[in-house]
Amino acid sequence: MEHFTDRLIRYIRSKRSSAVVGLDPHWKDIPAKIKSSALSEHGRTLKAGAAAVTQFITGIIDAVAAHVPAVKPQVAFYEQFGVPGLEAYRKICEHAKARGLIVIGDVKRGDIGATAEAYAAAHLGLTDIDGQTLEAFPADAVTVNAFLGIDGVRPFIDAAAKYGKGIFVLVKTSNPSSAELQDLESGGEPVYVKLARLVAKWGEPLVGEGGYSAVGAVVGATYPEAAQKVRSVMPRSFILVPGYGAQGAGAAELKPFYNADGLGAIVNSSRRIIFACKSPKYKDRFGEDGWQRAAEQAVIDMNGELRSFGLQ
Amino acid sequence: MEHFTDRLIRYIRSKRSSAVVGLDPHWKDIPAKIKSSALSEHGRTLKAGAAAVTQFITGIIDAVAAHVPAVKPQVAFYEQFGVPGLEAYRKICEHAKARGLIVIGDVKRGDIGATAEAYAAAHLGLTDIDGQTLEAFPADAVTVNAFLGIDGVRPFIDAAAKYGKGIFVLVKTSNPSSAELQDLESGGEPVYVKLARLVAKWGEPLVGEGGYSAVGAVVGATYPEAAQKVRSVMPRSFILVPGYGAQGAGAAELKPFYNADGLGAIVNSSRRIIFACKSPKYKDRFGEDGWQRAAEQAVIDMNGELRSFGLQ
Repeated sequence: MEHFTDRLIRYIRSKRSSAVVGLDPHWKDIPAKIKSSALSEHGRTLKAGAAAVTQFITGIIDAVAAHVPAVKPQVAFYEQFGVPGLEAYRKICEHAKARGLIVIGDVKRGDIGATAEAYAAAHLGLTDIDGQTLEAFPADAVTVNAFLGIDGVRPFIDAAAKYGKGIFVLVKTSNPSSAELQDLESGGEPVYVKLARLVAKWGEPLVGEGGYSAVGAVVGATYPEAAQKVRSVMPRSFILVPGYGAQGAGAAELKPFYNADGLGAIVNSSRRIIFACKSPKYKDRFGEDGWQRAAEQAVIDMNGELRSFGLQ
Repeated sequence: MEHFTDRLIRYIRSKRSSAVVGLDPHWKDIPAKIKSSALSEHGRTLKAGAAAVTQFITGIIDAVAAHVPAVKPQVAFYEQFGVPGLEAYRKICEHAKARGLIVIGDVKRGDIGATAEAYAAAHLGLTDIDGQTLEAFPADAVTVNAFLGIDGVRPFIDAAAKYGKGIFVLVKTSNPSSAELQDLESGGEPVYVKLARLVAKWGEPLVGEGGYSAVGAVVGATYPEAAQKVRSVMPRSFILVPGYGAQGAGAAELKPFYNADGLGAIVNSSRRIIFACKSPKYKDRFGEDGWQRAAEQAVIDMNGELRSFGLQ
């Protein structure tokens, strides 16, 4: 069984990319033809929502699979379509894996011990039904909210160790109000730095052959100064970096997230890739129906931006 | 449209109880007959897990509905059975509502703005499909993780205001390692007190006729000293109190969670109620098959414990 970060590094090298495509299907932005086809088949139901999302995201996966190591479906955009939406989430995770992509389920789960065990079984491990082990949702890694402390993280770490999977613990999120709690000063440093120290400690026993732990962190691209602080306290953790592009941060700000070996970070972009067809730059070139080619070109362009700064 | 806490207070008064039954169906503890019936119908599949959970939890709801104002299904125990598990979650929420119970979905969701909007639509509000609004999961209230700050909470507050629903923000959780982040000292007080101040502020515009806000908090029964601190800074917030019973706290420790009006707290008990049939006290009296009567008696006994301390 290959270690999670060893596999991630192998994919980063073979695709020459540390970009991650965020699969966040905002209903309003899904191409009109896909929506009207789903609506005519299923009426104005949650099933129609799930069907449109499945068709659109499957197409996006096909368009970007050759160019990136991983995708990151945001489960909230599937949960909003209820049970059919969760079925869509499961399907697109499976499709992405079949297309040779690492799937990072952006679920941000976190709870007390016994409950976190159930979440870990649901999203990383296996559910045991009378001795038969079954996969509920098939992600390779998930994001975890550690606000409840190690009790709520331990079951995810255990599942990662057991099944060759990974976790990314929220350390400093990309949104404006992340400061309210994460930046509170305690003992001379912000809470998020304290949390980064915990992540480094939790991850120590799970370091792979490539030198990186299966316990990573989430740090927003919008806070490069935070990256500098946390990069030094958790040198062996991969940082999943959201907020690139749509949330305002550019490639120049990404350097502090990486280690000197050119590894240690993966950069997520969601809307700027999957809805590239909406931006004049790609719309003019590929037209309304060219949403797959627009997404592919946008991810190629993003890879180019990262490489222009010496990043993979 | 009745305000969430006005309805909650009405139910507390009519049932003479501030107890909440946690619907956390650990697979191993579900009565053997229910499991074997589900296994013979569906084989060792996620569907079998979901079917057993649905039958068991539906029976628990029927047993306790007359005695408590609310139930709190923990969604992790449903998610572990994948898509069929989420269908079970939806069904038991609907069944509980049909039996006159308030449903608090223990989902602990939290994310950045646009994503939190999708979660809020999924669990509190409505999903809009081409102008048709649909209910994905039908809870009356949900628990929210505010680690990302107000960006991630605002969509839940907005949905609560719009649809007469409620939220309970995690302030101080019941587990041992909650101290790791929540107790960090910042500016002379623990992070969780700072968070309680935010909850009070966020909840100010949502106070109902009964004087309580639709924005409540979660504070573990295991930390009565925390209750004293947060009760004073958020007098108009209902506190959802987990950790009673199974996690070690008794009725005497609950007093500081309540206001002088005898309101302001609801106390959750999960395993001690729904798996009462496993404890000698009830097993001897009701037998293996008496799991419903055991649960009913356990909740009657819990109400008695709360009342013996002058609590509803």
